[in-house]
Amino acid sequence: MAQEITLYTAKVCPFAQRVEIAFEEAGVKPTKYQIDLQNKPDWYAPKVNPASKVPALAYGGPKVTPENPSPESTKLAESLVLLEFVADLYPNATLHPKDPVALARARFFIDQVSTKVLPPFFAFSMRGEAPDALLKALKELQALLPPGGGFAVGPEFSIADAAFAPFLGRLELNLRHDLGLYPVGEGLKVHKQVFEGAEFARLQQYFKDIVARPSFKTTFDEAYLLEHAKARLAKAGERKASY
Amino acid sequence: MAQEITLYTAKVCPFAQRVEIAFEEAGVKPTKYQIDLQNKPDWYAPKVNPASKVPALAYGGPKVTPENPSPESTKLAESLVLLEFVADLYPNATLHPKDPVALARARFFIDQVSTKVLPPFFAFSMRGEAPDALLKALKELQALLPPGGGFAVGPEFSIADAAFAPFLGRLELNLRHDLGLYPVGEGLKVHKQVFEGAEFARLQQYFKDIVARPSFKTTFDEAYLLEHAKARLAKAGERKASY
Ligand SMILES: N[C@@H](CCC(=O)N[C@@H](CS)C(=O)NCC(=O)O)C(=O)O
Ligand SMILES: N[C@@H](CCC(=O)N[C@@H](CS)C(=O)NCC(=O)O)C(=O)O
Repeated sequence: MAQEITLYTAKVCPFAQRVEIAFEEAGVKPTKYQIDLQNKPDWYAPKVNPASKVPALAYGGPKVTPENPSPESTKLAESLVLLEFVADLYPNATLHPKDPVALARARFFIDQVSTKVLPPFFAFSMRGEAPDALLKALKELQALLPPGGGFAVGPEFSIADAAFAPFLGRLELNLRHDLGLYPVGEGLKVHKQVFEGAEFARLQQYFKDIVARPSFKTTFDEAYLLEHAKARLAKAGERKASY
Repeated sequence: MAQEITLYTAKVCPFAQRVEIAFEEAGVKPTKYQIDLQNKPDWYAPKVNPASKVPALAYGGPKVTPENPSPESTKLAESLVLLEFVADLYPNATLHPKDPVALARARFFIDQVSTKVLPPFFAFSMRGEAPDALLKALKELQALLPPGGGFAVGPEFSIADAAFAPFLGRLELNLRHDLGLYPVGEGLKVHKQVFEGAEFARLQQYFKDIVARPSFKTTFDEAYLLEHAKARLAKAGERKASY
């Protein structure tokens, strides 16, 4: 019997998009509830996620409205935990490759995204640090992609792709609009290098395959994200003059 | 057909012990090769793990000696990736709980170990920082344990336990012998609090269940670890006078 599922999410959040993508890939439509991260409802931390972050899931229990989560449903948090959970719930999606070696490669890819790519991604975009560490990490991640084409660990879309896509999408969008705490013009320069330069050709092909994926398209609201990135930048104020 | 498996490991390494425990739980004996971390063989990084760390696995390919890894075997690294891999390879072990919710809880438990417990664990043991953050994290982790008894997410031993046990074992051993960069006597004090104090009663029960587990016992060489911890401390020199 199908369980009740409520996904607490926020359009702006790349971690939450991972889980939205996973549900799309599984062809399952959970109840989605948007959490305003600037103004979180009082009941959210005590009743859903003590860490007070999105994404979080309420699974099972009686049918309730998202604002009144039942104590009988299971509450789960952490995007990578939820991504694996969705893959476990719906084994007919390709999220978990059937071959254990491919699955291990998918998890290694995710580990590299978390430990190697995201720290310099945030340092560059949010703190205006130089892009060098990010470029190096992206080159190393690119080297993990199958050379002939396809997704992170083969022809089928897996948890590896769901975990990385939200960050790759935001990187491309923000660079293209030069939206980040780096010096003015730096975003466009890095965009040219990563999304047009020959040394990143394989990553560019991968990016094209990702954005063409319906599960990505329907969970990535470009106009909304752009507005949000502009507002955040305006609020952060001062950009660097140069490195 | 059973594949060739070589586990590159080091007795001293808690990350590597995670994978050794997993193989024991699965009742599988891979070829084990001890890497001397102070003097790693030249072939290790280029032929097995570019990150030059243990644990790493060579899976499949022809029968070879560990010192001559075949280019035909799959090389895998990162302890948590390997832990999941072993659980996937041998689904008859209890490492992956059959219930997806229990499995998600196991992965959440591991996430909390990685992000909440290990940073203050290393800060206290290796850098001599105050134990407060570690004690708080252990209390929060304890709160995740089923109150009535059993392992991290239920009556059966899972990946959650394999991931945490090596660190809990080393913590207890080193505190008991006051071996760490904290002030002299501080280890014994914290040992008393965590391994005898009433506020950690549930963790103490859990610890007893862990050390009684054959998969833990056979992969935890107490005498060796003690020698190593003493030697490391002697080399590190200066301990703090007090906080
Ligand atoms: N490690 C978490 C990170 C989630 C996270 O940082 N979410 C942010 C939005 S992108 C959030 O909810 N922030 C609210 C807050 O920290 O108050 C995961 O992977 O799910
Ligand atoms: N994130 C890695 C950490 C492994 C690790 O740090 N291993 C240490 C020994 S405990 C190592 O091989 N160090 C050797 C070095 O860094 O040169 C994992 O989970 O497998």
